[in-house]
Amino acid sequence: MRVLGVDPGLTRCGLGVVDSLPGRRVALVAVGVVRSSTDNDIDRRLLAIADQIDEWLELQAPDVVAVERVFAQHNVSTVMGTAQVAGVAMLAAARRRIPVALHTPSEVKAAVTGSGRADKAQVQRMVARILGLPEVPRPADAADALALAICHLWRPAGTLAAPQRPRQEMSVAQRTWAAAEHAARRPTRG
Amino acid sequence: MRVLGVDPGLTRCGLGVVDSLPGRRVALVAVGVVRSSTDNDIDRRLLAIADQIDEWLELQAPDVVAVERVFAQHNVSTVMGTAQVAGVAMLAAARRRIPVALHTPSEVKAAVTGSGRADKAQVQRMVARILGLPEVPRPADAADALALAICHLWRPAGTLAAPQRPRQEMSVAQRTWAAAEHAARRPTRG
Repeated sequence: MRVLGVDPGLTRCGLGVVDSLPGRRVALVAVGVVRSSTDNDIDRRLLAIADQIDEWLELQAPDVVAVERVFAQHNVSTVMGTAQVAGVAMLAAARRRIPVALHTPSEVKAAVTGSGRADKAQVQRMVARILGLPEVPRPADAADALALAICHLWRPAGTLAAPQRPRQEMSVAQRTWAAAEHAARRPTRG
Repeated sequence: MRVLGVDPGLTRCGLGVVDSLPGRRVALVAVGVVRSSTDNDIDRRLLAIADQIDEWLELQAPDVVAVERVFAQHNVSTVMGTAQVAGVAMLAAARRRIPVALHTPSEVKAAVTGSGRADKAQVQRMVARILGLPEVPRPADAADALALAICHLWRPAGTLAAPQRPRQEMSVAQRTWAAAEHAARRPTRG
């Protein structure tokens, strides 16, 4: 399975593509950031980002697009632009009938490091280790996008549909993840 | 000039189209809401809204799209979906190279009623009066979209770039009332 992770942002939007391999291994396919100029109006910036995401979807043909779930509690000065880019990314996937999954930052941290409270540097080191890279991908948005894609592959099966599973089936890391997810998830439908 | 006003929302997105006429009159062209089902995932909902906005742009061919500027301080439970729909609407306009303008709720209230602190009911009554309608358009999202479009036509010229205007000009409220009275005497429905 090929997953495109999207770390949404108006100035820099991280994109990372990984393939799942047998034995829960994960291979890096592509990573980068797409940008829009702060000199342009918001509508032109969204168009620039959307066009570049379309190119990635066309070229990489992911089976799933995993997008960071944005909360209103995030940095207020940038959260609206972040939410709009997330919306544009989800729309681009939906137009191509590619399924979309949303993962919270806590879910990503827990899936990649085993702890929903891991710091960003720890997550990025784990991304490099998981993918067998000699160093952490830069900029941070690119590494974060890869972490989202890995999270989608490594999340405990079925947790999104049925968060409560028998405890005896879960590893420590999985329980940590489930607890983090339970704490972090909030309904965003409106 | 033809303006499409967009009151963004995931469950109901208000759309209102008005034409400017000589003498600062404004004519209703079309008004309605586009909806997405709460049964669907967010990406499918955004696609449903985007497709319907595309149809409106195709059919009505506005010169400008006026979108409500969404703030993070708004209702937290729905603001992310609202921001995403605003982003999708701006993207749809940008793809067609239609200019986009953003107006805050206070700007809309001030342009339509003369007071940035007017309540929603007052704004909606003024929308009906300005457009010569026998009653307030329903649902409220539809009336709000018309208010946005009217705001775009009636905002003081250049205020977005230079908020301070010479005092000897007619006030926004004076112009609003003069135009409303004028429009009320000549009902124009489209």
